[in-house]
Amino acid sequence: MSNTQTVASLGENLSLKRIIERLRKPTDDSSNVLVGPGDDSAVLAAPDGRFCVTTDTMVEGHDFKLEWSSAYDLGWKAVATNAADVAAMGAVPTSIVIAMGVPGDTEVRWLEGFVDGANAACEALAPRCFVVGGDLAAADKIFIAVTAFGDLQGREPVLRSGAQVGDVVAVGGTLGRAACGLALLRSGNADAINTWDDWVNIQRRPEPPIELGVLAAQAGATSMLDISDGLTKDAARIAKASQVSIALSRQALQGYEAVLEGAASWIDADAFAWVLGGGEDHSLLATFAADATLPRGFKRIGEVIERAQAAGEDSPSAGVDVLLDGAPVAELGWDSFA
Amino acid sequence: MSNTQTVASLGENLSLKRIIERLRKPTDDSSNVLVGPGDDSAVLAAPDGRFCVTTDTMVEGHDFKLEWSSAYDLGWKAVATNAADVAAMGAVPTSIVIAMGVPGDTEVRWLEGFVDGANAACEALAPRCFVVGGDLAAADKIFIAVTAFGDLQGREPVLRSGAQVGDVVAVGGTLGRAACGLALLRSGNADAINTWDDWVNIQRRPEPPIELGVLAAQAGATSMLDISDGLTKDAARIAKASQVSIALSRQALQGYEAVLEGAASWIDADAFAWVLGGGEDHSLLATFAADATLPRGFKRIGEVIERAQAAGEDSPSAGVDVLLDGAPVAELGWDSFA
Repeated sequence: MSNTQTVASLGENLSLKRIIERLRKPTDDSSNVLVGPGDDSAVLAAPDGRFCVTTDTMVEGHDFKLEWSSAYDLGWKAVATNAADVAAMGAVPTSIVIAMGVPGDTEVRWLEGFVDGANAACEALAPRCFVVGGDLAAADKIFIAVTAFGDLQGREPVLRSGAQVGDVVAVGGTLGRAACGLALLRSGNADAINTWDDWVNIQRRPEPPIELGVLAAQAGATSMLDISDGLTKDAARIAKASQVSIALSRQALQGYEAVLEGAASWIDADAFAWVLGGGEDHSLLATFAADATLPRGFKRIGEVIERAQAAGEDSPSAGVDVLLDGAPVAELGWDSFA
Repeated sequence: MSNTQTVASLGENLSLKRIIERLRKPTDDSSNVLVGPGDDSAVLAAPDGRFCVTTDTMVEGHDFKLEWSSAYDLGWKAVATNAADVAAMGAVPTSIVIAMGVPGDTEVRWLEGFVDGANAACEALAPRCFVVGGDLAAADKIFIAVTAFGDLQGREPVLRSGAQVGDVVAVGGTLGRAACGLALLRSGNADAINTWDDWVNIQRRPEPPIELGVLAAQAGATSMLDISDGLTKDAARIAKASQVSIALSRQALQGYEAVLEGAASWIDADAFAWVLGGGEDHSLLATFAADATLPRGFKRIGEVIERAQAAGEDSPSAGVDVLLDGAPVAELGWDSFA
């Protein structure tokens, strides 16, 4: 009976009730949740009198395909990607609200799988983080809009605009693996997908190094973001915001490329393009003063230099955002509408 | 040229930039916005160490039709409905993030109209509230997921569960007008729509009495919510959460009905059904101790009584949620999936 229940047959209120009952709950008093799901608003604690907030969206057919991602995968990914945006400020993820649209014939057990994935991602990546509210709407295709909150614990937020000439550029986490996984799925090559399922699974259930956000802030990171659209595209965001150029070293990126070369050769792809242009690992890109001690888990991949002028350009707002071994790099990466 | 720019032709980043530039900005230091749009997260102040959060979704074809609502209308409505959820906790709306999905051929000026409507609603209904971030995704149809935040200013939140037997039940704001406007639009009767355009406009751009939320909390409201799905359906939520019954008086509701009777007669509809079952005015429903002074703007419509048993039921969880002149009332109102 419960196997064939749909959202429409159960109704909005009872479907929401089933979801809320299934959400992971704080087991002690240390969570930030003062009033949980079920009222007009949740009430959350902001111990230092501030909170971080970020919002991100996943749309069926544009950002995911149901034949490639299970409900569990999507619940996991929704939490992981938003927790990474909180971590990129140097904050600890504390809570999440999820607004979803689903067709009426969506099975309730699909929603339960989604909740299980969201719960598991919180537990694995951000154990002090809980889903505290949401909304369930009728839609022709599934969309998932997540808003996540973080606690800066008294520290200043690490912005994109603080990179200084002479700083070290460093990455915490992996590069290109999710893009490799997506390319494998798109290839339709079942043997390749089975052989390199680790990278496929990173595409489905990314594992951003959430805890490195706080460590980077404590180590004095001057700027930081999470790489959601690709290394060069996101490095360019720091470059623009800080009015500097980011000079990357190809040699320093070879380790990220090497682990993907096997998969790339199976499907005749370019592993280095995944490293430069693949976003969905949601790793952290940060800059540190040259004499800072990088937190364990960060690897130096370049340095911050004075803003380079593009050839033939003399407008002060122009300039080169990212260079690789001294040469300007095109902005590879994801645009939702491209 | 700019008249024909679409989101796809401009790209995600530049479209977002255009939106962010157009957002209403705080003109003094008293806003809660510490870090605004453009970084991985916004950073907001929570002066009393807590914040309220609510999220709600509007989906094209399910919650709105583009032929009935302009972009400006939708921006207004997105802010108004969510600010009402914050007000229903007794809090002051401070900030909003908006995640949207739109087709690539959406004109940029449509997005600008949406921003103008959101700005205007903040200014008119919640002047200390600012849009501080968002996300723009590609989608086949438009959806709008809003998350809003509020400041309790040191007060306890007013929950749904605090109604006490003997309390007065009161409404702040109008009832049934948005439902009347929707019925007029659905009728396709152009004369009726023109004649009763005030009610059509409340459907398009609701004007919840946001400031009454704080006043109700200060007056000691024991429970409160915003009527988003219909008076009886939302009153039932208070009844269930508080384990009481809500006894409404038909006589006290006649004023709400009277102003809608003219429109109802034009399209052969039942004005009282709009009063009982129409939700989108987003007025506030609250309970107060019998000896409390109701804030100006609230009107008494009934009282809280001991939980009545349904005929033939003796399970302790059963019971009648809402009565009208002593008789149980069916739960009229909106279900997204019904």
